[in-house]
Amino acid sequence: MGKDRIVVGVIGFGTVGSGTVKILLDNRGVIAERTGFDLVLKRISDLDISRDRGIRLGEGILTTKAGDVLDDSEIDIVVELIGGIHPAKDFIIRAIENKKHVVTANKALLATEGNEIFREAGKHGVEVGFEASVAGGIPIIKVMREGLVANRILNMYGIINGTSNYILSRMTDEGSEFSAALKEAQKLGYAEADPTFDIEGIDSAHKLAILASLAYGIPLSYESVYKEGITKITPQDIEFASELGYKIKLLTIAKAVNGEVELRVHPTMIPSDYLISKVDGVFNAIYVEGDAVGSTLYYGRGAGDMPTGSAIVSDIVDIARNIRLNATGRVPLIRTAPSGLKVRKMDDVESMYYFRFSALDSPGVLSKISGILGDNNISIASVIQKGRRVGGAVPLVVLTHRAKERDVLGAIRSIDDLPVVTDKTHFIRVEGKE
Amino acid sequence: MGKDRIVVGVIGFGTVGSGTVKILLDNRGVIAERTGFDLVLKRISDLDISRDRGIRLGEGILTTKAGDVLDDSEIDIVVELIGGIHPAKDFIIRAIENKKHVVTANKALLATEGNEIFREAGKHGVEVGFEASVAGGIPIIKVMREGLVANRILNMYGIINGTSNYILSRMTDEGSEFSAALKEAQKLGYAEADPTFDIEGIDSAHKLAILASLAYGIPLSYESVYKEGITKITPQDIEFASELGYKIKLLTIAKAVNGEVELRVHPTMIPSDYLISKVDGVFNAIYVEGDAVGSTLYYGRGAGDMPTGSAIVSDIVDIARNIRLNATGRVPLIRTAPSGLKVRKMDDVESMYYFRFSALDSPGVLSKISGILGDNNISIASVIQKGRRVGGAVPLVVLTHRAKERDVLGAIRSIDDLPVVTDKTHFIRVEGKE
Repeated sequence: MGKDRIVVGVIGFGTVGSGTVKILLDNRGVIAERTGFDLVLKRISDLDISRDRGIRLGEGILTTKAGDVLDDSEIDIVVELIGGIHPAKDFIIRAIENKKHVVTANKALLATEGNEIFREAGKHGVEVGFEASVAGGIPIIKVMREGLVANRILNMYGIINGTSNYILSRMTDEGSEFSAALKEAQKLGYAEADPTFDIEGIDSAHKLAILASLAYGIPLSYESVYKEGITKITPQDIEFASELGYKIKLLTIAKAVNGEVELRVHPTMIPSDYLISKVDGVFNAIYVEGDAVGSTLYYGRGAGDMPTGSAIVSDIVDIARNIRLNATGRVPLIRTAPSGLKVRKMDDVESMYYFRFSALDSPGVLSKISGILGDNNISIASVIQKGRRVGGAVPLVVLTHRAKERDVLGAIRSIDDLPVVTDKTHFIRVEGKE
Repeated sequence: MGKDRIVVGVIGFGTVGSGTVKILLDNRGVIAERTGFDLVLKRISDLDISRDRGIRLGEGILTTKAGDVLDDSEIDIVVELIGGIHPAKDFIIRAIENKKHVVTANKALLATEGNEIFREAGKHGVEVGFEASVAGGIPIIKVMREGLVANRILNMYGIINGTSNYILSRMTDEGSEFSAALKEAQKLGYAEADPTFDIEGIDSAHKLAILASLAYGIPLSYESVYKEGITKITPQDIEFASELGYKIKLLTIAKAVNGEVELRVHPTMIPSDYLISKVDGVFNAIYVEGDAVGSTLYYGRGAGDMPTGSAIVSDIVDIARNIRLNATGRVPLIRTAPSGLKVRKMDDVESMYYFRFSALDSPGVLSKISGILGDNNISIASVIQKGRRVGGAVPLVVLTHRAKERDVLGAIRSIDDLPVVTDKTHFIRVEGKE
């Protein structure tokens, strides 16, 4: 056994930084009992070292200079918790070049620059831990890299953005509009002043890129992830979905199909009796189906100081275990399979669809619309036509059998051109058994 | 990096053995891509090597002699899948003495003889993998030992016996009697001809002993687990529970309370809107609450050839990763904490309770019963008294606030002695917010 103390430095003393530091201090004893070694927190850097975080720290731990962490020869593991691309990336690269192991929660950075970071880490023989980058405290990275290592991953569905899940849950429970639910989320601190990353599916897409590369042995390919946010979902859609036996969730989907992999983030209707449909509020869950293990699901808090800190510290322990035994690289960083799958073009994706057409309440409308759907190889599974007027027109709701995205987009273009159609057609992709 | 092939031998070619072998053969390529080394299955021993398992094996792999696996100097990892105490234990000890790492799914053996087995493994510097011993394919052992390593575990609730969960789900969905649901489970192969281990909570208690030792750093203490089966649950109880907003599940409970830990398995009423209440049929789930991570839940198949095989092979990979880097012992086997908690006596446990009294439909009955409850420090939260006669008497249902098990047992003794009480009182412990 190697050294019995592993020295840690933290860059970024915000929410997650505070949670991480609290755990390192409060649970130091129980972690040492479990592992047989001591985690020593040596330095914390942040631009603001005067604010009181309610944590009692020893003299000389706080510094405003990241360099005091990055260049301290005694520090084994650097924890990067400032977020964003720069200077986070520069700090991480400098830590790696200084032969320090890195732990980060920075999904945006990893999803976009991760291939380079992992390459650098490999070159310098250090580890990069990123458990906290996806789904907060849920140990989904470890599950994918180790727990399910024996499986080909068939598909993976995730609710991995707490903000949008909170907003959709609220809209579902209270029938409120998107904008009202967003405001509420902002008031409670669940959404940021600029909520773009969360509500437009960008944050989910970052995380999906990370999960998919682990599941399918492909490089991090954020640019290839199709993304669509929740801003266009209306209470009316949620009500129709419920009537049809579905819930609407912002779902990340990764799916192996005929030698390709689908990577997409969009509002999705899921059968209400599926376990993942019952994941509400700020909670996260990931459903993973493997060829051997079958259906599995992992559930927990996807954000917050302590849950994310739990993931950060589990990474620190993991890396520390390797440091002590000279076992760095024990579990390879994302490994690109020679037989790697290609990401499928969105046009080629097949799905079931929910359409909400806005049409004049005149005879023959359904026949015209269903004619166009048929011409585009889209067959109808069920129809709701209630004759209730919304803004002068009548909503006509159609659920389809499996159809091609390309055909669907074509059909909608034709349908929206019909004189009887009064507004742009809304559609939501549907998952579940056909 | 060390050797690039790790040699595996399997003892026991039954259901789980077949699943394990299938995965080792079918997913050999994808596992090698992920790990960078090759898992070679060299030998499989079973008393019956003539039966066709639908798996094509090379010449000379099958043998009837366990010794051909245990004493083969080329084999690195021995997988024990015969179950039971003897000769499984003897095989495992012999493998360990031969300096072979061991992977096993044998919860009965580990729960009762695990302390000795782990001690022997430690002495000989080999690993024992037991992911498959609890909750089949759900990687809960890895989650407890690694994913949540930063947390003090506050409590842990599990549905980890698929057979009894299937029976209770069936009783709930169809209003059937226990005996009918058991027969159905046996017909479908979900229950064995002798179902004692499953329906009496013994199997759940084995698994709880394993989980609790990981969560709380205590030795394996199967004898200290309180256990009670599901044989006395009636459709009537399930109906009353539903009326009160609860489901009845065979729950394993581990809970840290005032420096002690509760370890118990019994039918439990859980609020219907809890996620774990929605885990039905043969599925398993474990809810774990950590001081940092908060609420988490892990869900999947708890049995079956392929799900259990998934866990077995993940252990093989884990150990292989250590073999290659001389990192054996990287994650300590169950480590008994010096500050270890004591198991709380069942008499001292506090819980909410559901009582179903059978009493004559005469005035003053409720007052007599509630008087005795009051005398025993048990306060009533709600009452259902419907006046419907069942076997000449009227069921009176009472839900209590938090009370002590000792007081409850005392109260029931007094109540069952009342002349107006016509049958033994049924009670079920209740979890959830008070």
